[in-house]
Amino acid sequence: MRRCLELARLGAGYASPNPMVGSVIVHDGQIVGEGYHERYGGPHAEVNAIASVSDESILSASTLYVNLEPCSHYGKTPPCSDLIIDKSIPRVVIGCRDPHDKVAGRGIGKLRDAGVEVLTGVLEEESLELNAAFVKSHTEGMPLVIQKIAQTLDGRIALASGASRWITGEEARKEVHRLRSCYDAVLTSSATVIADDPQLTVRSVTGRNPLRVVLDRRLRAGAASRVFDAEAETVVYTSSCMTGTAAADRLRRSGVRVYGIAGHDDVIDPAAVLRHLHDELRVQSVMVESGGILATSLLTAGLVDRLVVFVAPKLFGGDAQGAFASLGLSVPADAPLFRFSPPRFFGDDLCLEASAVR
Amino acid sequence: MRRCLELARLGAGYASPNPMVGSVIVHDGQIVGEGYHERYGGPHAEVNAIASVSDESILSASTLYVNLEPCSHYGKTPPCSDLIIDKSIPRVVIGCRDPHDKVAGRGIGKLRDAGVEVLTGVLEEESLELNAAFVKSHTEGMPLVIQKIAQTLDGRIALASGASRWITGEEARKEVHRLRSCYDAVLTSSATVIADDPQLTVRSVTGRNPLRVVLDRRLRAGAASRVFDAEAETVVYTSSCMTGTAAADRLRRSGVRVYGIAGHDDVIDPAAVLRHLHDELRVQSVMVESGGILATSLLTAGLVDRLVVFVAPKLFGGDAQGAFASLGLSVPADAPLFRFSPPRFFGDDLCLEASAVR
Repeated sequence: MRRCLELARLGAGYASPNPMVGSVIVHDGQIVGEGYHERYGGPHAEVNAIASVSDESILSASTLYVNLEPCSHYGKTPPCSDLIIDKSIPRVVIGCRDPHDKVAGRGIGKLRDAGVEVLTGVLEEESLELNAAFVKSHTEGMPLVIQKIAQTLDGRIALASGASRWITGEEARKEVHRLRSCYDAVLTSSATVIADDPQLTVRSVTGRNPLRVVLDRRLRAGAASRVFDAEAETVVYTSSCMTGTAAADRLRRSGVRVYGIAGHDDVIDPAAVLRHLHDELRVQSVMVESGGILATSLLTAGLVDRLVVFVAPKLFGGDAQGAFASLGLSVPADAPLFRFSPPRFFGDDLCLEASAVR
Repeated sequence: MRRCLELARLGAGYASPNPMVGSVIVHDGQIVGEGYHERYGGPHAEVNAIASVSDESILSASTLYVNLEPCSHYGKTPPCSDLIIDKSIPRVVIGCRDPHDKVAGRGIGKLRDAGVEVLTGVLEEESLELNAAFVKSHTEGMPLVIQKIAQTLDGRIALASGASRWITGEEARKEVHRLRSCYDAVLTSSATVIADDPQLTVRSVTGRNPLRVVLDRRLRAGAASRVFDAEAETVVYTSSCMTGTAAADRLRRSGVRVYGIAGHDDVIDPAAVLRHLHDELRVQSVMVESGGILATSLLTAGLVDRLVVFVAPKLFGGDAQGAFASLGLSVPADAPLFRFSPPRFFGDDLCLEASAVR
């Protein structure tokens, strides 16, 4: 199953909005076939794994391992559970169930009805974690939100003057590029575009660019900003009253899509943006790369699923800027709570990943 | 040598101002004897290791491992290098040289002059690290200063209201008690005494109490504060003009020693305090447990050797208090720089240890 998860990860950034799935076929204690879901619309992991077995006759005495329940419905490809039954594979070991409402246990049921021995829940937590975005999309109808922060050990993202280049070292910055290539979209604010003019593309590693998303209520960010260049697609969310302006037209001429979000007050509702991204643009995962205001509004709205915090071993002091504005807490017990994953080093910096505890 | 370091650590808190030393005797590939320096004034590690060998006749065909160069001078005990020569031990493997000006290579010289084969520098970095306080004391004449911080992931030590109980969990707080038992002194400020009334003793683990040190320029902390209780010794540093006051007398009646530090301005010079602790009270290591002002004055004076930062997986937000006040930085490159050790979990919290890079 560990090998399945390894294989599955090879589809990161390409499989979405399909899940990342890897499959391994074992005969007589030996791996005789492997496959993974390489890209959206392409064959599923089980299909590739079965096709990779040179001697098809041994399938009827083999075990198929897969990190996600085999599908039971006709989507872009025929159902994998049918294929497994057709090939007379007698035993299937599954990481976790598919939350997709067209599967949700039906793949397992179909296999069992056909007399296949099915074992589920092997490395279940890791399997759910790997496809957390897919799972959240199908269970909550919202994208997984990862807040990325690069900070000093005393929790500062910029000096009082705004100077922040560079807090973390090259290896941490390279990891940020790798992360971008794994998520469907990166989300930032006009404030960050104006202050830092980030390009938000994948450059220092090989990988596909995420959709770039800018929240810009008053369309303050100039059309010449790097985030609007032709290297990747960009969408802008603004107040619905701004969509007919000359500024909106300038953005559209640069190939940027501009969406208006109706709102009753001064801020764009970040939940409405995430819902639109999910429902209209098939975005299942969003990495937020922005400063205090947007980060705080996502956090206080309970929309942040994960923090990925790169911590540089240096100190900026108490007058420097933090990653969040006031959370309006009156007692420590009300603080938003997370759970750390094991930390990793990137050069001299540490990456602390933490998942929201709800 | 790893076993020597393990043994040496058993003397933490008790050996000081002597170094922590462990020794292992190996004969025919087997450990035949072990010992460590158990307490200040007691026999050295080599003496205990040699005494632990049941058949003394095998010493002349054994190797003695020790993490610090054997001493060459008469102190509280006779020189260990003489003992090694007397017992005809033919081979000695040493972690690092002893920086003590009465040793500093003379132990090794004596052994070699007597025909003993000496190998040095085995796990040298770990050996120097283990006795960093002893090494700093003998090379710089100042105690090792460890700044302890308990903070949220966004670098906050208290809410805007001052509320901070508890940021970290029980296991992290227990580790703080263990750390206290390893260092000669804990240093805090009157502001922390007044705000939190900490006892600063070792309670949730077994170990000896450190000397408690309070910086209190105007003797604002009341004599009834828990830090002045009879559980452990306490010293107070104040302005020299305060030593004759009634407040100073009240403290003395509680068994507290009060020292005046001459100064030309409004703050007590922390370097003068550390020097006094080192030279007069034989303090080689100080853990600082205090809030912003003292932490900042130590940091900006370049007096902090190590940070031990317990990070809780929660967020307090930008209006909450940080561990440091302004460091007066104008560019990111001027930020005080550290180097992380591998992080450790204590319950749900992470402990990030970082050494100053100078």
